[in-house]
Formats: sequence, C-alpha cells, structure tokens
Amino acid sequence: MSQNTNTAAPKHMPKDMKEIVALCKRRGFIFPASDIYGGINGFWDFGPLGTELKNNIRDLWWKAMVKCPPIGPDGNPVRIVGLDSAIIQNPKVWVASGHVGGFSDPMRKCPGCGKFTRADHLWDTLLNDSEWGTSLLQEIQEQGKINTDIILKWAKSKGKKLAPNLAVVKNPEVTLSWLATRINGQPESPPSMIEILQHLATAQLNSTGLQDPCPRCGAPLEGESTFNLLMKTYLGVSASEDDKAYLRGETAQGIFVNYKNIVDSSRVRVPFGIAQVGKAFRNEVNPRNFIFRSREFEQMEMEWFCHPDEADMWFDFWMEERRKWWLSIGVGSDDIIFRKHEADELVFYSKKTFDVEYRFPFTAPGFGELEGIAYRTDYDLTQHQTHSGTKLEYMDPMDNTKRYLPHVIEPAAGLTRGVLAVLCEAFTVDPNRPSGMYMNFHPNVAPIKAAILPLTEKDGQPEIAQKLYMDLRQDYMVDLDIKQNIGKRYARQDEIGTPFCFTIDTETSSDNSVTVRHRNTMKQERIALDKVKSYLQENLSKFD
Amino acid sequence: MSQNTNTAAPKHMPKDMKEIVALCKRRGFIFPASDIYGGINGFWDFGPLGTELKNNIRDLWWKAMVKCPPIGPDGNPVRIVGLDSAIIQNPKVWVASGHVGGFSDPMRKCPGCGKFTRADHLWDTLLNDSEWGTSLLQEIQEQGKINTDIILKWAKSKGKKLAPNLAVVKNPEVTLSWLATRINGQPESPPSMIEILQHLATAQLNSTGLQDPCPRCGAPLEGESTFNLLMKTYLGVSASEDDKAYLRGETAQGIFVNYKNIVDSSRVRVPFGIAQVGKAFRNEVNPRNFIFRSREFEQMEMEWFCHPDEADMWFDFWMEERRKWWLSIGVGSDDIIFRKHEADELVFYSKKTFDVEYRFPFTAPGFGELEGIAYRTDYDLTQHQTHSGTKLEYMDPMDNTKRYLPHVIEPAAGLTRGVLAVLCEAFTVDPNRPSGMYMNFHPNVAPIKAAILPLTEKDGQPEIAQKLYMDLRQDYMVDLDIKQNIGKRYARQDEIGTPFCFTIDTETSSDNSVTVRHRNTMKQERIALDKVKSYLQENLSKFD
Repeated sequence: MSQNTNTAAPKHMPKDMKEIVALCKRRGFIFPASDIYGGINGFWDFGPLGTELKNNIRDLWWKAMVKCPPIGPDGNPVRIVGLDSAIIQNPKVWVASGHVGGFSDPMRKCPGCGKFTRADHLWDTLLNDSEWGTSLLQEIQEQGKINTDIILKWAKSKGKKLAPNLAVVKNPEVTLSWLATRINGQPESPPSMIEILQHLATAQLNSTGLQDPCPRCGAPLEGESTFNLLMKTYLGVSASEDDKAYLRGETAQGIFVNYKNIVDSSRVRVPFGIAQVGKAFRNEVNPRNFIFRSREFEQMEMEWFCHPDEADMWFDFWMEERRKWWLSIGVGSDDIIFRKHEADELVFYSKKTFDVEYRFPFTAPGFGELEGIAYRTDYDLTQHQTHSGTKLEYMDPMDNTKRYLPHVIEPAAGLTRGVLAVLCEAFTVDPNRPSGMYMNFHPNVAPIKAAILPLTEKDGQPEIAQKLYMDLRQDYMVDLDIKQNIGKRYARQDEIGTPFCFTIDTETSSDNSVTVRHRNTMKQERIALDKVKSYLQENLSKFD
Repeated sequence: MSQNTNTAAPKHMPKDMKEIVALCKRRGFIFPASDIYGGINGFWDFGPLGTELKNNIRDLWWKAMVKCPPIGPDGNPVRIVGLDSAIIQNPKVWVASGHVGGFSDPMRKCPGCGKFTRADHLWDTLLNDSEWGTSLLQEIQEQGKINTDIILKWAKSKGKKLAPNLAVVKNPEVTLSWLATRINGQPESPPSMIEILQHLATAQLNSTGLQDPCPRCGAPLEGESTFNLLMKTYLGVSASEDDKAYLRGETAQGIFVNYKNIVDSSRVRVPFGIAQVGKAFRNEVNPRNFIFRSREFEQMEMEWFCHPDEADMWFDFWMEERRKWWLSIGVGSDDIIFRKHEADELVFYSKKTFDVEYRFPFTAPGFGELEGIAYRTDYDLTQHQTHSGTKLEYMDPMDNTKRYLPHVIEPAAGLTRGVLAVLCEAFTVDPNRPSGMYMNFHPNVAPIKAAILPLTEKDGQPEIAQKLYMDLRQDYMVDLDIKQNIGKRYARQDEIGTPFCFTIDTETSSDNSVTVRHRNTMKQERIALDKVKSYLQENLSKFD
C-alpha cells in the first residue's frame, strides 16, 4: 500500500480550499480563534485532531533532528541538541538581528478611509479580495468586453456603496470619456484589467499619470511607508516606551543568543546543530489563505554551525535531508519543489537560499513557501558578538590558536504551514464512498492510527472492543467509537484519515476474529483478534 | 531499585537553590534568557537537557490525559480530547473571563524613586530582598540586641547610600529617640523586626502612626493601587488603543471558548475533558525564585465538563488521579501536599479548590503551588455565553428536553513549575562521588535514558559504541560520548541524571560484553552486548 494511489481527483487539479477549511472545522482539525466572539483576524485554534496532527509533525521533526539525527558524510551520526528559548527576549536581541530596523512590509495609507494596504500585494488584493474590485470585474467579464455604459450604471449604483471615493463614482462622465479614448484609440492593444481599474480611479490625476486606488474605498493611495512586523508588548509596572519588548518574529534568534551557553555546557563540537520548535508572531497586515499567513504560527528551525570551508557541502547535505523528511510525512515529490532564490531576492547576508515550496490549492499551479534553507554565513553571530560585546568565537579543540566564527546553514520550516500542506495533500475526493472524500494521511502523521468499532452494543461487543482499545492505546493513538450505525462511523474515520478500522461483531465472541477495513481501498479482511496489534504494526510501516 | 533511596542528604534539609541554579546553567538545563545581553527580568531559556526534561513531563501529562486517560468510576476509560488554542484571542474573551477587570496585583508606588512594590509582598521583600533592609537587619542581628548607636552609625554610613529617603537617614536623632522610647518603655514586649523597620522610616508620620518604607530607597510608600497582569500588544497597522489585544494569562480560557466547537465536531458526551498545554504570560512585578515566578511560563490545564450533580464525585476522582501522576514522575509523596483553600481564599465562583503544593528549597519548610484543582461551577461557560451571545448549553443525548450548562472541575498544573519541582526533587548531594552530587531523576523524565561510553578510541570501541547507539536511539534518548577520561564522563552523566551508563572496553570485542553502571548506587555489572536493549527496557521500568 502506498500514498497517492486510488486518488479519484486528477493530479494537479487544484483541490477546493473552501472544502478543506470546512472539513477542518466540522471534524475538529482547526477552528477560527475566538469563534464564538466572531473570531480575530489572523489567529486560529487547533482542535483535537489538528493538535494531534501538529504534534505528530513536530515530534517527527524533533526525532529527525535531535533524537535520531542523520548520518553525516563521514559515516558518523551528526550531533544536534534541542533548545526552547523564551518568546520574549531582551529587546537588544532584535536590534542586533536587524528586525527592529528592517523587519517590515511596505505599506500605503488611504486618505479616504484611513486603512492601510500592503504595497506589494495591492493588485492581487484589488483583483481577488477587494469588494469593489471583484464586483466591477464581474460586471465587465459578464459583459465580455469593456462597455462604458455598464461601468456607468455600476458607478451610479453598486459603486456608490462599495467605493464612494473612486474617481469613476465621484466623477463618472470625465473618467469614462477618458477610458473610452483609451479603448478606442488603441484597439490593437486592449487595456489590461489593472489598467482599467487604474483608469477608473484616475480622474484627479489624469494630467500626470495613472494612480493606485484603495482596495476598500477607491480613494487614491498615499505613497509607500514601512511597517514593522514585530509585535510589541510592555513589561513591568510603569510599562512605558522604555519597557517595550517584542514577541519574537522567528525562533532562530533564540538559538543564536544561546549559542555560547550551549557550547559551554553541552560538549558539542563544530560542526553541530541547535534545533528549536516554537511559536512566532508577525503583525501581518493582511493575514490570508487559512493558516498559511497568520499572525501567530509555529516554526521548526535548526541552525547548523560549521567551518566556513565546509558550508557549501553542508548546505547540499541539508537540502537532501529536508527533501527526504517532507517525503517521509507524505508531502509528495510531485507537489514539492526546491526553488533557488535569485540574486535580487537574496537577503544581503545570505550567500545562497532555497525555498522548499508546496503546491497549495490557493497557489496552484504555482507554489507557496514551506521552508527556507539558507546559508546565513556568520552574519548572526557577528551581529550578536558586536551588539552584546560577548566573544562568540569558536576555538578549535585540536588547535587552540585557531579561532573563528562558525558559518551557519539554516533549514527553517513552518510547522503551521507543514500542517496545512499535509492537510491539502491528504484531502482526496472520492465519489465512491459515503463521505465523498477521505484524508489520505501518511500513517506517520495521521491523528488516529486505528479505530475500534463494535458493531452493536450487545453480545459483549463493547467489552471486547474496550479490552482491545486498552491494549492498543499503550502504543498508538486509537479511537474507541461505540454508538451510531457502522456506515456513518466508517465515513467519519475516512474524513479524519484513520488508516485502519477494526470492527467487533457477533462472530468475534465465537471465533475471536475481527474485520479490518483499509482506509484507502475500503477493502475488508478478517483477522484474529489477538493479531490486531502485530497487524497494525506491520501495516502502518508498510506505508513508508 | 526505587526512588529516594541512597540519598545522602537528610530528608527535609533544604537543598541549596543556588547550587541547583548553577548546575542548571553549567549542564544546559536552564539559562537566563538573553544571557549575553545581561538577561531580561522574568524570562528563562530551556537548554538542551531542560528542553528534553520539559518535553518528557509535557508528553507524560498528555499521555495521562489524552492518549491513555484514566478508568472512570464506572469501569470505562474517561474521554479527554486535546486542544491547542492561540495565545492571542479576541480581547472580549478576557473581558468575559474577568481578567481585564480583575486579574491584578495590589501595588504601591514610591514617590522617592518612582518604583513600584507589590503591596502583599512588602515585608517579605524588605526582610529578604531589599538591600537596605537586609543590611540593617544584619547589623542588628550581629549585635544581638537593639542598639541605637549601631543604627545611628549605619544611618550615617551605609544607610546614606542604600536608603537616602529613609527617615532614620534623613533625620536620625528624632527617629532614634522615638525608637529608644519604644524599646525602653515596654521591655516585656520587645518590638519585632518589622516594627523596628517601620519605626526607622517613620519620623515624618509619627503623630499619626507607623508607615511603610520603600524597599529600594526608604521613602514612605503611597497607597495601594491595582496593576493588571495581562500583557498587552497591538494588532494591525494603526495599532491604536482600539487594536489592543492580550497575551493569554492562562490557557484555560482557550478551552472554554472552544467548548462549543469541540462538542459540535468531536462526538464527545458529558462527562468529558479538554486538555491543553501551552505558554501563558503574566506581567509579574517581582519575578523571583528562578523559574517559579516568571513572566512567561507553561501550563498543563484540563477542564472536565460534567453534570452538576456529579461534580463533587469527579472532584475527588481528579484529586486522586493528579496525586498518582505527580508520584509517577518522581515528585515524592513526602514533599507534596494537597492544601484546601480556606473560605476567605476561594475565588467567588469556586465552590472548592485544593492546591497541590511542593516543598521547594525556597519555601521549605513550607510549600509552593504546583497545581490548582478547582471546582469552577458553570461560571466560565455562563460568562462566555452571556458575553458572546452564543448558547453553550449541553443537550442530554438521551432526553433532548434536558439542557444545562455543565459544571467544570479544573486540574491546572504548571509545566514550568513541574520542571522546577522535578529538578529540586532530583538534586541529591553525595560526597562519595567525584561530582559531589547526582540528579536522581525518575527514568520517566530523565532527559537521557542511557549513555554509551567507549573506554578508549582504539580497538574498534567507537565503532561498537556507535552501532549500539544507532540501535538504542530508535527507542530511547541516548547519549554517545566518546572523548575524555571515563571518570569525568561518569561524573557528567551523574550530574545530568542519566540512569544507566554502558561502557565498551577492550573485553567487549573479545567476549561481546559491556559494563553497565547504575546511577544511584554506582554499582557496575557485566552484561552481554546484545542484551543491552532488553536490560535497559527492564531496568528503566523497575523504577516505577
């Protein structure tokens, strides 16, 4: 049995994100945070199954990094130790790291409604998320061509409500006559949607050129300014600006500031790694795409400290290890790519960076970032050495005249995004079963490994089921589900991606056998009750 | 082999907290956060071993709650599901819970130095943490009796530097003559230390009564005001007061606001529980006692929802389960008590609360809180139902005319404090070994279960050791330590509390045997190399 077989939906046909989000809420994977209070933009809560799923991914990363790190190029296992640093650190940490100065998004303020829009997302927002943008787009598209009468009608009705400050709403005749000139003047190159939207917002500025409208109210946006993404808080009683601190924007800096204490206390020698899993916070202006871009999220970051001469070799090593790891949790090779950052995309201190990207339903046919693997040189240790005044040089244990700052390779993965990729990858449409779909989780990450289902509440079946549950739960996360008809219970286990269901029925008490149902094939077979544990062990590992 | 045997230090002799803190830094359990920047008050980072220790405690709690919950009074296992809610929730959550209004400490401001002192800790601070308080106390105690000449000398030298605003420093003659009257006037009831300190601060107010001096500068403190413990942050671009949000002050409220979504999605029926482990933040004015009272910490909270008629029965049930759990991680019955809250100590909505308290070195012979087990009635669900306008009543599945708000029993444990209790309990002085001490961790929580130590780097010993390491690490967190003389390596394993060391030596390659060394007894025995895994499995479980 292998992953990605029996998939009814053709490959690369984008899965429906709305269905995935709905399933997540309906079955207890992920809920909007503070749902009963109308939610809070950019925050999500992990329900019972989402928590198990996330913990499984977290634990498998920890195992691959800290408990059973890979064999290095010399045939010996590499050494990586764990860390769990505080979310709030001395604010000087974030000055040294460059986050206080430079960790910012370009923003543009609207003088009409006072709201901000992210400058580099403006047109994407206008075409996909803006109420007036999508409404106007729909009118034009339904018409099939650019008809100024339709636009005039829209401007005088819907437009008035949706975008009161848009030029075409405030001053429709002037704006539209100009647009008509543009359309009729150059029939060989019809204006793009973006140009049309710009034209419709542009009356006030038509002598100097096109301008950018606010996605909310249509007023012309002000120029770009930067907006720091670090969330701030205040410590102590007076809680003045002097007491300002930040919630970490990444877990990595906690590793760099602990580098010296770990070298001094842990008998590690370069090359070695420090791994950390934990929450990070970014005051994203436009949180979006479910848990993909949220304001509170989890990272799994490992900083690998090595000699500068060996950095390129270790970079390739970790690229390969990370590829294998994502595959091991069922994020398949077809949907994952390693994309090299172009020179103009690289941050100034990085010599080389690859993004591990996944084809999410909302990026398909394109890809979205899941992990970044960066060669960060000795930038971070240099910064912290300079700002803290603490020597961070490593002394070669073989030759104590040799001292150097190690270079760093950083595989930095998103745990929250990992959960999302696993959910998207597992979601499998299948019209041939009552649930209409199933979650094709790799057993490594499946929240529940097996369900134990007595067919009825009679004949001592619940007792047999409970005995089996008590035995299996020592080793596996298992579900004992007694009530409801068996079809509905199978459907629920399909929806939550349980690889195996064991059913206790009237025959069980006479011949000590149970039915096992396979999630992906729905095939059933009969096995001995006392063989269930070994059967489970054997068949869960066959997925690999 | 059992816990708490071979303990060289007599029972109940307080362990030295400074030694424990020093060991934690030296061996990589716990570091001050942002140490290279001089730290940050109230925040700590968990190093490689501290992270493993904390994760072990976290995982054992999760196993006892979610994966293998206990057998209930009816003989069936109870049902508990997990949750991982966001640290930042809609601020209305904290209004409803009462935290915005009432989650505060009483504070007193000093008009002299501008600093705040926690009102209910004033005298404890003065006698134990205040520079001038402890200095003055020392003078008086060395003298053996109250000698106004000594105090005068102190006031004119040290006192001037330490407490410039103290009455006895500003106006020594007046203050001391008044003290002399008090001492000589009533020889049968000599004044207490606190009275003396009050007298020495009191000249300005001696017509109306004693007053309270600032522990920092000695000036008379202003009256009490309240100080909210919730840490605030700001969301979105404008980040105005309207965009204020809070870092959660406890994980419990995340459970209550998810109650409805979990009931709707997870096929749970009352009685059932929701369990959560995660960080919480409190803007403590005086963080103290290592990780005992920090500003960022972790909790393990479970809310048990039950019928009001059964609440008392379940309260007793969870008291017993929690007692067994703490024992299972080596927090012994001698050092743990269950203390019932007195009527005047109970929060108004709780019908009954017990604190699980541990005898920490800094509280000995007294105890400090480790967990609270509270009968919270239906207070939280009522509050959230009222504030959110969302019905939270539970419908009896057997009789849908019966609807009620479940009552709640809450065992709320500190994970960070659990780590501290385990560290304190394990710290064992032993002059009979090179390290002078060892960490007597229960194997369930020991960060490293076994060390594999080749005696030399010759004779293929490292290769045999590595083969054993690769085998054992699949099941256990193990340490492969190759260099350094064996005595030093044993000493290090004692200090980090590794239950067993397996040593590979020259005989190993000829007769396939290894030496196993027991941490607590230091006894060594010879076993077969291929029996190491089963030996480890058997002997780790014997600790239970």
